[in-house]
Amino acid sequence: MAVFLENNRGLLLAYDQGLEHGPTDFNERNVDPAFIMELAAAGRFNGVVFQKGLAEKYYDGRVPLVLKVNGKTNLVKGEPVSRQICSVDHASKIGAKAVGYTIYAGSAHESIMLEEFGRIQEEAHKLKMAAIAWIYPRGEAIKNDTAPEIIAYAARTGLEVGADAVKIKYTGDVESFKWAVRSAGKTRVFMSGGPKAPSEADFLKQVRGCLDAGAAGVAVGRNVWQSLDPLRMARVLRSLVIEDRSVEEALRA
Amino acid sequence: MAVFLENNRGLLLAYDQGLEHGPTDFNERNVDPAFIMELAAAGRFNGVVFQKGLAEKYYDGRVPLVLKVNGKTNLVKGEPVSRQICSVDHASKIGAKAVGYTIYAGSAHESIMLEEFGRIQEEAHKLKMAAIAWIYPRGEAIKNDTAPEIIAYAARTGLEVGADAVKIKYTGDVESFKWAVRSAGKTRVFMSGGPKAPSEADFLKQVRGCLDAGAAGVAVGRNVWQSLDPLRMARVLRSLVIEDRSVEEALRA
Amino acid sequence: MAVFLENNRGLLLAYDQGLEHGPTDFNERNVDPAFIMELAAAGRFNGVVFQKGLAEKYYDGRVPLVLKVNGKTNLVKGEPVSRQICSVDHASKIGAKAVGYTIYAGSAHESIMLEEFGRIQEEAHKLKMAAIAWIYPRGEAIKNDTAPEIIAYAARTGLEVGADAVKIKYTGDVESFKWAVRSAGKTRVFMSGGPKAPSEADFLKQVRGCLDAGAAGVAVGRNVWQSLDPLRMARVLRSLVIEDRSVEEALRA
Amino acid sequence: MAVFLENNRGLLLAYDQGLEHGPTDFNERNVDPAFIMELAAAGRFNGVVFQKGLAEKYYDGRVPLVLKVNGKTNLVKGEPVSRQICSVDHASKIGAKAVGYTIYAGSAHESIMLEEFGRIQEEAHKLKMAAIAWIYPRGEAIKNDTAPEIIAYAARTGLEVGADAVKIKYTGDVESFKWAVRSAGKTRVFMSGGPKAPSEADFLKQVRGCLDAGAAGVAVGRNVWQSLDPLRMARVLRSLVIEDRSVEEALRA
Amino acid sequence: MAVFLENNRGLLLAYDQGLEHGPTDFNERNVDPAFIMELAAAGRFNGVVFQKGLAEKYYDGRVPLVLKVNGKTNLVKGEPVSRQICSVDHASKIGAKAVGYTIYAGSAHESIMLEEFGRIQEEAHKLKMAAIAWIYPRGEAIKNDTAPEIIAYAARTGLEVGADAVKIKYTGDVESFKWAVRSAGKTRVFMSGGPKAPSEADFLKQVRGCLDAGAAGVAVGRNVWQSLDPLRMARVLRSLVIEDRSVEEALRA
Repeated sequence: MAVFLENNRGLLLAYDQGLEHGPTDFNERNVDPAFIMELAAAGRFNGVVFQKGLAEKYYDGRVPLVLKVNGKTNLVKGEPVSRQICSVDHASKIGAKAVGYTIYAGSAHESIMLEEFGRIQEEAHKLKMAAIAWIYPRGEAIKNDTAPEIIAYAARTGLEVGADAVKIKYTGDVESFKWAVRSAGKTRVFMSGGPKAPSEADFLKQVRGCLDAGAAGVAVGRNVWQSLDPLRMARVLRSLVIEDRSVEEALRA
Repeated sequence: MAVFLENNRGLLLAYDQGLEHGPTDFNERNVDPAFIMELAAAGRFNGVVFQKGLAEKYYDGRVPLVLKVNGKTNLVKGEPVSRQICSVDHASKIGAKAVGYTIYAGSAHESIMLEEFGRIQEEAHKLKMAAIAWIYPRGEAIKNDTAPEIIAYAARTGLEVGADAVKIKYTGDVESFKWAVRSAGKTRVFMSGGPKAPSEADFLKQVRGCLDAGAAGVAVGRNVWQSLDPLRMARVLRSLVIEDRSVEEALRA
Repeated sequence: MAVFLENNRGLLLAYDQGLEHGPTDFNERNVDPAFIMELAAAGRFNGVVFQKGLAEKYYDGRVPLVLKVNGKTNLVKGEPVSRQICSVDHASKIGAKAVGYTIYAGSAHESIMLEEFGRIQEEAHKLKMAAIAWIYPRGEAIKNDTAPEIIAYAARTGLEVGADAVKIKYTGDVESFKWAVRSAGKTRVFMSGGPKAPSEADFLKQVRGCLDAGAAGVAVGRNVWQSLDPLRMARVLRSLVIEDRSVEEALRA
Repeated sequence: MAVFLENNRGLLLAYDQGLEHGPTDFNERNVDPAFIMELAAAGRFNGVVFQKGLAEKYYDGRVPLVLKVNGKTNLVKGEPVSRQICSVDHASKIGAKAVGYTIYAGSAHESIMLEEFGRIQEEAHKLKMAAIAWIYPRGEAIKNDTAPEIIAYAARTGLEVGADAVKIKYTGDVESFKWAVRSAGKTRVFMSGGPKAPSEADFLKQVRGCLDAGAAGVAVGRNVWQSLDPLRMARVLRSLVIEDRSVEEALRA
Repeated sequence: MAVFLENNRGLLLAYDQGLEHGPTDFNERNVDPAFIMELAAAGRFNGVVFQKGLAEKYYDGRVPLVLKVNGKTNLVKGEPVSRQICSVDHASKIGAKAVGYTIYAGSAHESIMLEEFGRIQEEAHKLKMAAIAWIYPRGEAIKNDTAPEIIAYAARTGLEVGADAVKIKYTGDVESFKWAVRSAGKTRVFMSGGPKAPSEADFLKQVRGCLDAGAAGVAVGRNVWQSLDPLRMARVLRSLVIEDRSVEEALRA
């Protein structure tokens, strides 16, 4: 994970929404992966998250690459399942420094994803890549996917299955997120940026809350590239995450 | 993909309907794959699409081959799934320059096809073949499979999973198809010809619309080989697609 | 396929009913595979169809062997599926010149069988064996499994998936079966003999009809070995199929 | 199979009930596999049937070993399925001279077991081991699992799939069992001992009936080791099966 | 198993609850795997049970390692299934002396787990590691998962499938547990500690009962690390299990 960290913190630019949500998340500008690649470099992100198709055609090496190796569309109904669509070997050849994999804990198909991640984690480590688990409790059995005990369970699952880092949603308050971070032990915790927050300040407070709770950083997508000035947002986030400033200080950056 | 392009455009002759729909699509003449092979060559198509059985018995090398490596009959009810029936290695030995694979995005079995395409794409690239994804959103969850946001999602899925080209249906208007093409980024977009249009002019307007929206070309089957004069239709389409003429000019060709 | 043909026609003795239907199809005499092996040789059949258990214990090489490599009992309810139970390599070692595989087109499990046949066909060809597809549309979606368009679809499926020969049921009339044969292209068509016909003449007329429609031959089981004089029936069929005689001439043979 | 035969007959001691039924089948004495191993040797059985756990810890080589390579508990409801839990290679290393495998013909999962047995049979023969199929028609579709036509079908299935011997239940009368034996052809038929019979005489008559019908022997468990004097029962059975005596003679043995 | 035994008894510290139950089982102190590792060493346990993530990041070799190689969250509804998430080879490289695997006997997915354990057991033995089966009857078909006949069945299943040791729940009384131990034969029986007992004395009586019934030891988690003085509890358990003292003596230790 060291390659993704700066002052022991990491700011990742997430851009796997094209497969997970479709282009409805995009506008004329951010629909273009080249724009995102530029933004990742200019915004001095510590990593950029791509599916293999984007990495093969747009990745240029200026920022460490997290290759998302599974994925699904959101057109499918029923219990979620997301399988491997990029081999670890291929990820390595494209230049990835980490593989990312989503586990829908609680899904009726959970065991398929746990098993697949188990194999991928071992392959990644053999090739000196980190293994990052996106852990999203989902399925009929999950009533509230940001409930503190659910998020702490997600964080712990990341630790138990051998993830170097786990990407989880925010619980909404520092105290409960502290418990999630503690549950993750030596596995680093990244907050999942999620949908664009109502206001910039709201989002930054969430990020600050995660950091105060002990998170290593944030993997942010829509709250950066859907903002009117993505580069400024990147600068503010760097100030907050990497330089560990307050929301107020960061906004003045 | 270069082998399939001319003036950066491509006109592919699709003939995988024998498995997908059965011979009801055919007449006495076009039921014969030899007729299609002749048509592909005489019509100067940039590629011809066959299942392995046809390629093994009828393909003669005059036109680049796209080997369709998965398929299903339309006799099966329920959520669609189509699995690999030709190995990439075999496709290469038959002389294919690309493999084609259908993904039914939105199907309950989507994850099986995404996973299989992921592996096939890597194998194809290792053997210097292109990987073309037919992406057809289908299944209980899909109400309208040519809705602009659905087609844009299909196009984007092609890009995300690493397809060199994506074959999708037309949305019906240039503006919305532009968004699909933009969503596909560096993945080339081919319009799926679909069932025979009510009139030749209708079909040609669709093709022109796709091209105006930025598509690389069209993969056409029934609208050519079901026409009364397939060779003339091929000539008209070449004029439209490869020489970039208007519908009116093309019809005079 | 050449090894199974004589005058470009083939007469195969089918004996895979032991697994597919159970011994209710048999009497004291024909329950014995040794009797069938004798009959195949004495009746000068162009091939004999066995499951591996029979081939291992009774096959003696006097007649080319088609090894049926998948199978199921008829005790199972629900959508049919039949998986591989003999490896292609083993079939070759036993002395088979072809592998046979049943695909239940239209079954909810169709994709499993298409995929398996795809792999088996490639393996068989590598070992210089032919691949023969039994294509039987079946399952909830199939109302009438001898409807002309269904049989033509079955025939075409055999061609598309790369079968050297396809075994299908008779449609009931020459004209519609011609279309099935035409749909199969260069894939040779064998009529499936089916249950014992009400009269010998009825059965022979069916066979004659298939041949007139362009079929390469017939794979017959019950109509031979359930007849009172199987050897005579074999002689009649040879006359009809291989010597291309009329029903009347054949009956005089 | 020769290693399991004496006078062309075989008497196998079955002891796979621990997994299939649980210890409710056992008493303080026969719960101990060491007791069974002693009994197998002292009773001069022609083979003993163990799961791998028992074979690894208790088998001592005095009697040829049939290693049962699949199994299930009877706690599971629904259509039965039993998968491989011991590799053929491992069975060979433990010293087995045959592998045993249960196929629940008629189960919705039948195809899984037929496929698995198909592979196991080939592996076993390569390692010079016999392949014995336990064929038990079961599942929603099976109304009476000892009906003559069902048992004959089970026997024939063993032949078709290449089993060296098949273990089936008794039909209840000699005539119908003769048909089952005839249906099995060169595959040797062993009667499955089944639950302890109401009286010793009842059981011995069943065994005699099977032998009179042409069976090669019996695989007996509960009727031996649940009897008050297992060794005497073994002696009686040897007399009946191997020395081909009448029930009355055997009882005097 | 010898490495885990002392006076032929074993006291294992179980800590796989993070994945199986989530952090709700933990407090601020025991949520930290480092605390558990210390406790394992200071408490002189004969083994510690970790998932691979914990072993990779916290295991230091002071106590023999049992690596749990499958797992699931308790968020999933329906018939339980738990698949392999750590390869046996990887477990060995991390330093494990045994692999642990949970089989939900009676689950509709039982056959998947029996099959997987079968393969894992063979791999583990090849690498000189023990194979320990957690056997928990569960699923719609199981009304009472500590009923004596159910626990005896679980114990026997461990023996049949080749486990070196089996971890099962207590039946509640010595007599019935004796039958379970006897059913397990040469497979060593460990009581599963289960949820924190109402009182320390209650728990110790259970452990004493298991030992009196012939168990080799206990795999205890919550009753140690949820206790107010885990180290004292460890000392008491050692006295009870390893030194074979009475509850009263042990409590004075």
